[in-house]
Order: sequence, then C-alpha cells, then structure tokens
Amino acid sequence: MTTSLGTTSPAERSVSPDALGVLAAQRRSAELEHLIREHPERFRVLTGDRPTGQLHLGHYFGTLHNRVRLQDLGAEMMVLIADYQVLTDRDFADRLTDHVEGLVLDYLAIGIDPERATIFTHSAIPALNQLLLPFLSLISVAELSRNPTVKDEIAHSRQAAVSGLMFTYPAHQAADILFCKANLVPVGQDQLPHLEVTRTIARRFNNRYGNGGNPVFPEPDALLSAAPLLLGTDGTKMSKSRSNAIALAATTDETAKLIRGAKTDSDRHITYDPATRPEVSSLVLLAALCLDCDPHQVADDIGSRGAGALKATVTEAVNGYLAPIRARRAQYAQDRGYIRQVLYHGNERATAIAEATLKEVRAAMNALY
Amino acid sequence: MTTSLGTTSPAERSVSPDALGVLAAQRRSAELEHLIREHPERFRVLTGDRPTGQLHLGHYFGTLHNRVRLQDLGAEMMVLIADYQVLTDRDFADRLTDHVEGLVLDYLAIGIDPERATIFTHSAIPALNQLLLPFLSLISVAELSRNPTVKDEIAHSRQAAVSGLMFTYPAHQAADILFCKANLVPVGQDQLPHLEVTRTIARRFNNRYGNGGNPVFPEPDALLSAAPLLLGTDGTKMSKSRSNAIALAATTDETAKLIRGAKTDSDRHITYDPATRPEVSSLVLLAALCLDCDPHQVADDIGSRGAGALKATVTEAVNGYLAPIRARRAQYAQDRGYIRQVLYHGNERATAIAEATLKEVRAAMNALY
Repeated sequence: MTTSLGTTSPAERSVSPDALGVLAAQRRSAELEHLIREHPERFRVLTGDRPTGQLHLGHYFGTLHNRVRLQDLGAEMMVLIADYQVLTDRDFADRLTDHVEGLVLDYLAIGIDPERATIFTHSAIPALNQLLLPFLSLISVAELSRNPTVKDEIAHSRQAAVSGLMFTYPAHQAADILFCKANLVPVGQDQLPHLEVTRTIARRFNNRYGNGGNPVFPEPDALLSAAPLLLGTDGTKMSKSRSNAIALAATTDETAKLIRGAKTDSDRHITYDPATRPEVSSLVLLAALCLDCDPHQVADDIGSRGAGALKATVTEAVNGYLAPIRARRAQYAQDRGYIRQVLYHGNERATAIAEATLKEVRAAMNALY
Repeated sequence: MTTSLGTTSPAERSVSPDALGVLAAQRRSAELEHLIREHPERFRVLTGDRPTGQLHLGHYFGTLHNRVRLQDLGAEMMVLIADYQVLTDRDFADRLTDHVEGLVLDYLAIGIDPERATIFTHSAIPALNQLLLPFLSLISVAELSRNPTVKDEIAHSRQAAVSGLMFTYPAHQAADILFCKANLVPVGQDQLPHLEVTRTIARRFNNRYGNGGNPVFPEPDALLSAAPLLLGTDGTKMSKSRSNAIALAATTDETAKLIRGAKTDSDRHITYDPATRPEVSSLVLLAALCLDCDPHQVADDIGSRGAGALKATVTEAVNGYLAPIRARRAQYAQDRGYIRQVLYHGNERATAIAEATLKEVRAAMNALY
C-alpha cells in the first residue's frame, strides 16, 4: 500500500483504468486508516462471511484479524453471516444451523466482542431483505450481468444453471451494507467491483428519492487490506474444500499433521522468496505472521536446517498462536445456549436498525401508508 | 369455456402444446368453479393490481367484477396492491400514495369488503418480500429470461435498460401468492406462464425442504375467467395511457363525452358481430354487460337507429350501472382516514400471515436461530 497520498507517480500513468481504480482505492484506504485512528466513532464497518464451514488461517490473516483490529480501534462492527447466499449449494444448505453456529464460535474465539460488534444472519432480518426490491429497480440486468465477481461465480459454479439468487447477489449485498448505513467495508481488490455496485445503488437511490440534498444512504468506502499471500499446504489456493487449510478449530495434532505433509522444495537452505519459492515462502510467512516478526528473519533463523526444521518452526508458531483462540473456542463450544443468545441479540439489534432504515426508505419513496 | 370435463375433443388433438395447456386450464377452471360453489371455505384467492391510476371498465368487467363474485361466494380474498412493481416507471412512483389510496377507493366502491377481504401493499410486508430470496435460489436466470410476460414487458418497456426488478418479477409474484398460501389465482390466458413459475417454485421448495411429504406451499390453481373483449373508445386496446377508457370514477358527463366520441362505422344498422364490426360490437357488449342481457338483444333493440342511438343506450347503461359504485366512491373519498385504516388493517393482517409463513419457511430450511 502506497503512503504517498494524493500524488500520482510516473509508473501509475501508463497502467489500465482498473489498476488506476485499485491505486485510487489504496490511497483512499490509507487516508481512511488515518481517520479511523483519529475518529473511530465515525465508522460503522460491515463485514461478514458465508457459512460454509470452519474458518481457517487464510481467513484469519486475510480478514478476521483485521476485523478485531478495527473493533479494538473503536469502530462499530456489523458482522453478517450471509446464510441466504449458500442456498444454491446443497452441501451447506442442509446443515445451515451447524455452519452458522460454528461461525459464531469462530468469531467469539478470535475476539469479536458481541458487546461491541453485532453478529447477525441474513435470514432473520426481513426489513434488510426487503431493500432488495427497491434496489433491484435501480440496477439493470446488463449491469448485473457485467459484474466480474458474478461472472466468475458463474464460471466456477458447480451448478448447471445460474440461479436468480446468484445473479442478483450484488444488489443483495448492497442491502447488506446499506441497511445499517455502513460507511466502511473491508475488502480485497477482487471485491472492489461489488462494492462499486453498492455505491452506485446508494447514489441512484439518493438522487431519485433524496428530496433535494437529503441523502438516505452513505456511499460506503472500501478499506483495502494488504492480505498476505498464504497458500494451502498443497501449494494451491487455501480452501476448505481442498483439505489444504488449517482450521482455527483444528487440534494441535491435526495442525502438525497438515504442516508435516505440506509441499516444499528440494533446496535445504530456507529463504523467503515468494516469487521463486512459493510453497516454502508461504510456510515462512505463516510462521512470521504467528510470531509477529519479519519473514526474512524466520528464514535466516532456520538457515540450512531444511524443510523439517521449517515445518517444526511453523507448527510450533501456529499452535502457539492459536492456543488461546482454541481454548476460548472450546470453552464457548460447551455453552450452545450462549451462542444462540449472541445470535439472538445480534439479530434483534440488526432488526431494529433495519426497521428504522426501511421506514426512512419507505417515507422517501412516498410508500408509508 | 368447455363443459365436457376430462375429455379431449377431436379438434383439440391437432393444436399446439400451449393451446392444450390453455384447454387444460379451462377444464380445471370449470371444475374449480364447481368446487367454489360447494366449498368456498376451502379457497384463499390472491388477486391484485399495480397502482398505476384509476381503474376503468376494462378492469371492472375483466377482473374486478369476478373478485366481488368470488368474495360473495364465500372464498377468502387477498387483494394485493403491487406498489413495488411500479418503481421502474417514474410517473407512477412519484405519486405512489395517491395511486394506492385511489385503488383502495375503487375496491371499496365496487364492493370489496374489507371485513372479508384483505387489502394490502407489497411494500408494507417485509416477511413477504424476504421470500424472494429463497425463491430466487430455486429458479435459474435462463428460466427468468424465458418467461413470455417478462419478455413482452421488456419489448414494450419505455426504458432503455430492463431493471433487475422487472427481470425477477415472476419470483416476486411467487412470493405474493405463496406468502399467504393462496390456492386460487384468477388470471387471463396470458398470465398462465407466470402462474406456472409460481407453481414450479412451490414444487421445488416442497421437494427440497418439505421433509418428506410435508409440503410448505400449495401449488396454486389458475382460475381462468372468460374476460369480455372490450375495446377502448378509439377502437384500440383499452388503456389509461391512451385516454380511451371509462374510469369507474369518471363523472356522468365525462362518460357521456367519451362514448359520444367513440369510433363506430358507417352502417346504420346495429349488429353484434365482434369479428367484422369490432368497434360497434364492443359498444353493444358494454351496454349488454351493464344491462346484464344478451348483446344480440341490445343490437336488435337499436336496429337501424344508428350509432347515435347506440351511444345513447351505452351512455345510459354505463352511467346507470356505475351510479351506485360512483356514489359509494364519492362517499368513501370524503373519509381519507378510513381509507388509511383499511390499508393499515389489511397490512397488519397480511403481515401476521407473512410472518407465520416465513417462520415455517425458516424452520423448513433449518434457518431458525
């Protein structure tokens, strides 16, 4: 992430519009980081996950860690469990309750504090979901078709046919973000086009129904975070479905076994060089993240002791880092009633927010009878 | 409508599958008419309108009259004002409250009884609208694209781009019908494909989430009504936007003026022959409907007295028929508080029904946290 705010370096001038958009988002994110530190109370942050199983270290260092950081800085966190966005996949849909409760457990374990953060599910907030209808009126089928993430989902979908739910997902996401008037959404670069749909819908709604300079919705900002590139233990993208990811809830033995089987290379001298040695470097990086030190330092410390020593270091670092998280998770797991209560209160609070927003929306649209 | 239930006449064997579908629907409708008379308490009927202005005689003899008939037979009526389905047209959206209240006035004037019928608006029932999400997961983009009525809407749309709202309309209509588990939907032939989408969604939901022979939704039946072919006063399709329609709320003078200007032909001898004399026959039919007699009889009574006499007969018949309806409308129009109250109670009742259904839906989907 660049620190030269508001300037355009020569290198940026010849890049594509998309890349320019990313650079602009990076600059804006740096400004926002500054603002959050000074005035955290000005920010309501919307984040969330689809309940597709246990969270793993890729999620943790990619986004979860950042959420706890923003929460602890004092921003208000809204944490959505997007349970209606897994319906098209029967594997998840059939065990929805387990997956949702597992996600709450993971959140509590990593330090999301239900006193300060609102954890809620899509399906429990009718007033949020209703917003999909006016929002769909503000976006065209052509625009929905163009969305790159939806295109990608469609290309990778295991289903023969794309469902109407997947197709309208960007408009539903706009409802997720705007129902609570979130003004900050932590995203990866690939999600910028999605957030742009939300910004467009907010702008169009305000223009059409805003009654002259009285906008109903903020245009939320993207907070780009520099997610570390962690590979799965087989050297490919980390993914639950590939069994190459260390779940937060895994045991120390499961963790050790996964790391023991991790792909490395034949060079016994350990270095940190993601471009040429992706698998080894990913392991080095993972240890560095857990030990909160520089990956080059980790590599130097191991030197020529080879992959075995690297794996021992990683295993110890990961198990050490996750120990308190796992202990908390185990403790919360014994009290299912508390998990249900966290969800219940989160849903109650999200409902109150959604109903207030929907009332405003209906008033703006002259549809309060 | 055929009365030979359950048999296939030779003429039917060579027609297209679509036409066979219509014939099947006609037969089923005849059976249903029989059942309604015997067991009206078994039927919950969903009907409704988009709030796009005053209702006219085309609406009245096409559908409204039939609704009052079904209500008076003892079926339970749910009357939807589809206010979210006019959002894409700014002309209507900007005066939503007026249009909605006008529609309630028209309903009360023609004899819809708010003690027996539930008059409600889309936008006030979040639990209804939420059903759109699971329903969208059960239907593909290809299926939504194929729907002929949506295709038609798209072809005739004044907008450059088709909105996501219009595209997903059949799934939203499924939510309108299924939220209250309506089992009967009065439709014209052109709406049969729409209702088929609703039936498909109900079936798929039951198959997927029905927990073994415990269906959540009925597959609603179409009740085809033989709508009389009434043309506008200019000889084209009757439509508010063409100023060729007699509004229920028009004054007697406005009515007389419209009929005086109606298109006829040069033959002074009045006959009822829709195929060769569509304009004259439409006027004859209108008088017959208002006088509750045979159109041939109306034509014979006028004989060779020409278009002037025909128009005088029609004017008198229409104004006579509408007089009590207009008197009631004028009376209700003086009490806006009552109109609001009717809507309020209707919305309250529809909300209770929708919330009960949504709870069942969420339980069936394992999404009750």
